[in-house]
Amino acid sequence: MELPSKLLENAVNEFAQLPGIGKRTALRLVLHLLRQPESQTQTLSASLTKMREEIQYCTSCHNIADAPICQICANTSRDASTICVVEDVRDVMAIENTGTFKGVYHVLGGKINPIEGVGPSQLNIGTLVEKVKLGAISEVIFALSSTMEGDTTNFYIFKQIKDFGIKTSTIARGIAIGDELEYADEVTLGRSLLHRIPFESSMKQM
Amino acid sequence: MELPSKLLENAVNEFAQLPGIGKRTALRLVLHLLRQPESQTQTLSASLTKMREEIQYCTSCHNIADAPICQICANTSRDASTICVVEDVRDVMAIENTGTFKGVYHVLGGKINPIEGVGPSQLNIGTLVEKVKLGAISEVIFALSSTMEGDTTNFYIFKQIKDFGIKTSTIARGIAIGDELEYADEVTLGRSLLHRIPFESSMKQM
Repeated sequence: MELPSKLLENAVNEFAQLPGIGKRTALRLVLHLLRQPESQTQTLSASLTKMREEIQYCTSCHNIADAPICQICANTSRDASTICVVEDVRDVMAIENTGTFKGVYHVLGGKINPIEGVGPSQLNIGTLVEKVKLGAISEVIFALSSTMEGDTTNFYIFKQIKDFGIKTSTIARGIAIGDELEYADEVTLGRSLLHRIPFESSMKQM
Repeated sequence: MELPSKLLENAVNEFAQLPGIGKRTALRLVLHLLRQPESQTQTLSASLTKMREEIQYCTSCHNIADAPICQICANTSRDASTICVVEDVRDVMAIENTGTFKGVYHVLGGKINPIEGVGPSQLNIGTLVEKVKLGAISEVIFALSSTMEGDTTNFYIFKQIKDFGIKTSTIARGIAIGDELEYADEVTLGRSLLHRIPFESSMKQM
């Protein structure tokens, strides 16, 4: 794809570095910006730079925040002894949307992934282990996606905290509410049978 | 979708104004930038702002260029009396890729679209009519997409240049090379029969 302008080419190449955006989509976005008032491009650039420079992370849970302590950690009505371990801020938002979790979070910032060069030291694992060691934690809930990387990360953390006498759990895997059994994959269906729950307690959640 | 930070929210909202990018995708892009070195965001912002501020348009054909006259218009080996009318720079690139067109272009910058508030005065139509009036043009080829807006635009321009004794044409519509007849829409198939070409001349293009 030969572009008629170096300026255009630079902008397209920068956009195309973002995940899920190829050269063609990048060109479409750049041409859109050219058709819009110059102020739109300026606002976009300014808000990206400002965000990247000034964003803060909660010193307790590592979630993105506008203050040194995020709103969830600062909320005294939440149970700070129950920690839900998640990958990133999107998972926090998803769980918050359910309205069923009253504990706090610990945002790892990724999963152990040797292929992409992400080792335990690049993730916020040390501070989680530290919290457990200090003794104020009663339960750690693992809520990473159930992939090779997620399971590896869970297990790596589990090994380091298992001797401190706290409860550990993972979120339940099973057939999604409303899904047809016949379309479920074997592993999920198998696990949902293995980890079946008493009927009475399933009624409670309705 | 409630975001934990105002800075994050601003960046997401700006990204989500781009076509085809929703809030969720915007969040994914912003989180990606946060995981990358700060320099990547700075380069992206800088190249967008620079592009928007400094980009030039060819004074002859209105294509995007790095100089007052684009490379195609400046190329003396091209036939400046044959003008191909296109919507934007992507169409120029597509036609250039075929390697079959040796004339020059005229980039309208859009199509007449009353619903989106785009009238003839917002497009580069006046300068095209001016060129034709000056008398150095022998043929105008309409290469807009065959939609209601494209046909309207073609007809609007045609009415203004038809009395100057030049040839006008539109690109051929028909069944794409390699396509199965049975899957073609009726209008395209109908037109391909109506505008059938002598067999001998179809052989020449192979």
